[in-house]
Amino acid sequence: MNDILVFGHKNPDTDTIMSAIAMANLQNKLDEKSAKCCRLGNINKETKYALEYFKVDEPELLEKVEENQEVILVDHNEFGQSVDGIENAKILKVIDHHKISDFKTAEPLFYYAMPVGCTSTIIYDLYKMNNIEIEPKIAGIMLSAIISDTLLFKSPTCTQKDVEAAKSLAKIANVNEQEYGLDMLKAGTDLSDFLCSELINMDSKPFTTNGVKYQVAQVNTASIEDVLKNKTEIENEMKKFIQENNEELFLLLITDILENNSQIISVGTKQDVVEKAFNVKLEDNMAFLPGVVSRKKQVVPVLEKNM
Amino acid sequence: MNDILVFGHKNPDTDTIMSAIAMANLQNKLDEKSAKCCRLGNINKETKYALEYFKVDEPELLEKVEENQEVILVDHNEFGQSVDGIENAKILKVIDHHKISDFKTAEPLFYYAMPVGCTSTIIYDLYKMNNIEIEPKIAGIMLSAIISDTLLFKSPTCTQKDVEAAKSLAKIANVNEQEYGLDMLKAGTDLSDFLCSELINMDSKPFTTNGVKYQVAQVNTASIEDVLKNKTEIENEMKKFIQENNEELFLLLITDILENNSQIISVGTKQDVVEKAFNVKLEDNMAFLPGVVSRKKQVVPVLEKNM
Repeated sequence: MNDILVFGHKNPDTDTIMSAIAMANLQNKLDEKSAKCCRLGNINKETKYALEYFKVDEPELLEKVEENQEVILVDHNEFGQSVDGIENAKILKVIDHHKISDFKTAEPLFYYAMPVGCTSTIIYDLYKMNNIEIEPKIAGIMLSAIISDTLLFKSPTCTQKDVEAAKSLAKIANVNEQEYGLDMLKAGTDLSDFLCSELINMDSKPFTTNGVKYQVAQVNTASIEDVLKNKTEIENEMKKFIQENNEELFLLLITDILENNSQIISVGTKQDVVEKAFNVKLEDNMAFLPGVVSRKKQVVPVLEKNM
Repeated sequence: MNDILVFGHKNPDTDTIMSAIAMANLQNKLDEKSAKCCRLGNINKETKYALEYFKVDEPELLEKVEENQEVILVDHNEFGQSVDGIENAKILKVIDHHKISDFKTAEPLFYYAMPVGCTSTIIYDLYKMNNIEIEPKIAGIMLSAIISDTLLFKSPTCTQKDVEAAKSLAKIANVNEQEYGLDMLKAGTDLSDFLCSELINMDSKPFTTNGVKYQVAQVNTASIEDVLKNKTEIENEMKKFIQENNEELFLLLITDILENNSQIISVGTKQDVVEKAFNVKLEDNMAFLPGVVSRKKQVVPVLEKNM
């Protein structure tokens, strides 16, 4: 029998990769049947920095799953964001912190979701519930996931539970969460050797609301200005993407992780939705959103309401 | 601001009622905002016996919820089995042990599901996780829920976790789970003063698979023969029900809780699905299914596969 496969969403970010590793690690301690962590795409620079810092291997790339393959999903539940073949896989568990949508199973399963900032915070809870000790390097990558998803506790998605988990994990991993956190976030903002086609895909998710298909991507930076140097090329890649994927809108958030604001660029036929959602006038396809850093909490819900 | 409303599915069984009471009790200890348990239909005799035994009041009847009403769902997630207006309510938490289907939210939520025999087993876990002591009478009704859903640990849905939870709860409630359990189950099988129209609705759930709408109901008894005395009238009520609800099949399980077998009666245009699913030939709309006692585990999945 195959291993149980544990993976997060496509276009993996740090939480999705680290949660897959940590959950596979926990699963192997809970159950005799072997579990293996996987990734559905390339690792970004922030994740790479954290994996190298704590000396943890990259998960293997997974392109599709066979029928009846046993899987555990972390950090996502929408089939559109999951691996090819997910419809016919056997989903044993889901550990997630997103809204539930486009998800169903043929049989009862273990589903543990909480409205917290990071999936690794929930996995931390599962280790505690099962009285399983967390190894220092696993604690380190789980801490990295929380720092990434909460932008070092500054995102409005961050909860008391995230902060408490991060502080405990930092102790186990023996790092200072503020110092290590800033270094990791900065490593992630180095966009210099990315093509614009790669940049819009680094952390990009498809959504469907009332039949309208659209894409919302986010890049973190220490300088919005730097990213905007390539605005025209970025816009062209965004237009190309939605044309190829039959989508009606592409919204890119360029988030300043030091100042905690976002510049948005939007293309497509549904720009009026963006203007209504954020009560802004797009100029040159752009608008500045002060205080907006969370796609999940501050962007997708208002788009959905206006779509 | 209104109370948070906590409720299980329509056509309430013992687990749905007891889990709503226990979860509201727990929620009130976790959060300042007041939570109130409700029921979506009449209490059956088994549930009544348990509530009276442990001196716990019936929850209030709830017919619909207003927009943005905060709710906690127990023992179900399918909107078709939930309260009227659920689509526009704000679902804060779901505690359940069923497959996930026809469920979605606009925002992240707390969702805790496990493939165990009874929702109250999961709520027992939540009390433990939060270090909250369970009062004896609440322990008693949670024990009743586990006994009911697992047919005193004999159903194939029963897991080690259900047995362990039940044994702990029996100690807190200070009852012998075998003696009390048999008395409670027997109290539930007294069908003498029910009309046939009531009998087919006591524990009845609608399902939709590949566009086909159908109904699966279950009654527990100590004598299948006794129930079959009214077979013609029961069949007529089943036919009337699916006609009024535009359904294509009604399957009634008459489950012998002492011998752990079921007699099925089916009516509608999809009887071939029943024959294929259970590899039986219906005679006079009936078939005997040895060892079948669980709608969730032994009936609905095979119907779905063949629908």
